Amino acid sequence: MRLHDFPDSGNGYKVRLLLAQLGHAYEYVPVDILAGESRTPEFLARNPNGKIPVLELDDGSCLWESNAILFHLAEGTPFLPGPGLDRVRVLQWMGFEQYSHEPHIATSRFWRKHVELTPWHRERLAEKKTAGEAALAVMDAHLAAHPFFVADRYGVADIALYAYTHVAPEGGFSLAPHPALRAWLARVEAQPGFVPMAGPC
Amino acid sequence: MRLHDFPDSGNGYKVRLLLAQLGHAYEYVPVDILAGESRTPEFLARNPNGKIPVLELDDGSCLWESNAILFHLAEGTPFLPGPGLDRVRVLQWMGFEQYSHEPHIATSRFWRKHVELTPWHRERLAEKKTAGEAALAVMDAHLAAHPFFVADRYGVADIALYAYTHVAPEGGFSLAPHPALRAWLARVEAQPGFVPMAGPC
Repeated sequence: MRLHDFPDSGNGYKVRLLLAQLGHAYEYVPVDILAGESRTPEFLARNPNGKIPVLELDDGSCLWESNAILFHLAEGTPFLPGPGLDRVRVLQWMGFEQYSHEPHIATSRFWRKHVELTPWHRERLAEKKTAGEAALAVMDAHLAAHPFFVADRYGVADIALYAYTHVAPEGGFSLAPHPALRAWLARVEAQPGFVPMAGPC
Repeated sequence: MRLHDFPDSGNGYKVRLLLAQLGHAYEYVPVDILAGESRTPEFLARNPNGKIPVLELDDGSCLWESNAILFHLAEGTPFLPGPGLDRVRVLQWMGFEQYSHEPHIATSRFWRKHVELTPWHRERLAEKKTAGEAALAVMDAHLAAHPFFVADRYGVADIALYAYTHVAPEGGFSLAPHPALRAWLARVEAQPGFVPMAGPC
């Protein structure tokens, strides 16, 4: 397998973390999204939506969308419940992550780390702050009653949400008001095979 | 089952369309999101993220996130491929829908139909126009080579993407440049048990 990825991407880190915990070997292909490398004809042939990560399978076909890749890799492993409601709850929290969390928290972090901020950015950062804080509060309330997001055990819903939550402070979000969330971050980091976000390159 | 839903929501329509095609009876509970009914303590007990649709199961537990609900209802039916790569491709396109399509096309439509537009809205509508047009182009290119989104047969990936695409003109998007997409809309509308978006109430 080959993982086409931007090293500082949390969406890519989701896949890297699961691959490490599964013990899968893979080739890492860095894609400099800041230099337009995810918009080339070669890249668009792998993902017509022009986004990393892309997992290129051994038969040459490509999978994109980080949470779909997680679902694929975790199938049949302890990181994804078998068919039934728990599995659907994994998809529910992954949907929450991509719609209500990532566009606010990850985008804020990306701009603050990689972009020269203009008044245009600052106005939108303020809006994303409100929406991202609401997402963190939803997570904290859930985690006050549950050790992990689904079925009381660590799995790909946790991986999907950990990726950008643990670096939320880089996006201007404080985790201080969320003690249950902070305890969950520590539980994730104590899992066997855990690797930090700093990628293989 | 009870479906808590806003009648003009495309996310809710996804679930209504599949329920109709599966022939499932259900109770429809309209939620006036414009009047704050998705932010009451009662509603937040069903979905802490405060969004419709919510599917309340017979045991009283609640599922949220429209695409997770589709996955749940379609399991074991012809609307969702069995385990394997085709099933993962369904999740891939659902991820595309929630991240790269819905926030631009559905939000534009919602504002133009339900909100008094201010300069703040108009500036963001222009940004969403560019992003939404890119999503429609990705769909059109895929549909130029495939009759449906996954495995050459109609299923929940089509339902997820049909919901807001067929009303994209209400959001200010023209479908004229996308002939393959328009032909797919007609194929979806010709499916057995198809029901239009105007809901049961």
